[in-house]
Amino acid sequence: MSAGTETLPRGGEMPANEFLKQLAAVIRAEDSYGSWDGKPDAELLEEYIVTAEERREMPIMGDPDPDLLWRVEKFYEAVALLLEKRTGAMAAQMSKIHHEGFGRIVLISGRLVVLSKHVRDIHRFGFETYVRLAEAGEQASRDAADMIARFPDAASA
Amino acid sequence: MSAGTETLPRGGEMPANEFLKQLAAVIRAEDSYGSWDGKPDAELLEEYIVTAEERREMPIMGDPDPDLLWRVEKFYEAVALLLEKRTGAMAAQMSKIHHEGFGRIVLISGRLVVLSKHVRDIHRFGFETYVRLAEAGEQASRDAADMIARFPDAASA
Repeated sequence: MSAGTETLPRGGEMPANEFLKQLAAVIRAEDSYGSWDGKPDAELLEEYIVTAEERREMPIMGDPDPDLLWRVEKFYEAVALLLEKRTGAMAAQMSKIHHEGFGRIVLISGRLVVLSKHVRDIHRFGFETYVRLAEAGEQASRDAADMIARFPDAASA
Repeated sequence: MSAGTETLPRGGEMPANEFLKQLAAVIRAEDSYGSWDGKPDAELLEEYIVTAEERREMPIMGDPDPDLLWRVEKFYEAVALLLEKRTGAMAAQMSKIHHEGFGRIVLISGRLVVLSKHVRDIHRFGFETYVRLAEAGEQASRDAADMIARFPDAASA
């Protein structure tokens, strides 16, 4: 069997990307006993992958479970840390998620809401590929940096 | 017995005050069946009163119960509505309260955090008198209005 006919792994290849590195680091920070030391980043992030087929099988409505809310929180924590690396601005996360899975997530820096996401169907949170996951994190971090550039005084108040 | 020797009711007299009226209105809005129609505002707000003596009897540490968190939420909802009446700016409330009773409450208008309160011992939330309750609400609403005046562009973004 040649390499060309191999099926890509679930979520596709994992690109070398700063956001993905940051997200993996955020998750490793929770691993007090080093039990994940041997795991590659792709494995740590695999629960962020939801393929099109998996998504079709998910119910339209659903209550998000604690593991999923934890993953959402880590996602935005990584966005905030990447933002800090790139702009120096520290951002705190707040969220208000209804138990039925809709709500709002914000990152706050000083007096500025640098990122504001209204979410729904959060029980379906996930990305088809690692590339998409990386793009989403990079985009969120860029949006936040743009907002700081727009209102620097409020961000440092 | 002359009027002069009467003991003041718990929480003192209730002053005529816009914040207190707003807070009572916010609470009445939850009363779908009109069962509180006959209750005066002072009675609706009496759980906001914690006298010095009552406070002494409260434990230093304690988990806030849902009723208390509801009262805190209604307090900031009234602050937000008063702010809207006075400045036209609508503000959404978000909070992140640890189950041990510390955390942060914010009001957000546009991209601006118009009010930010770090709280602790929230299980002891309350005011010695109606006058103090009114002052706290008015002060919070004024602080928020000042923040909007300082960063009007972020508030309307």
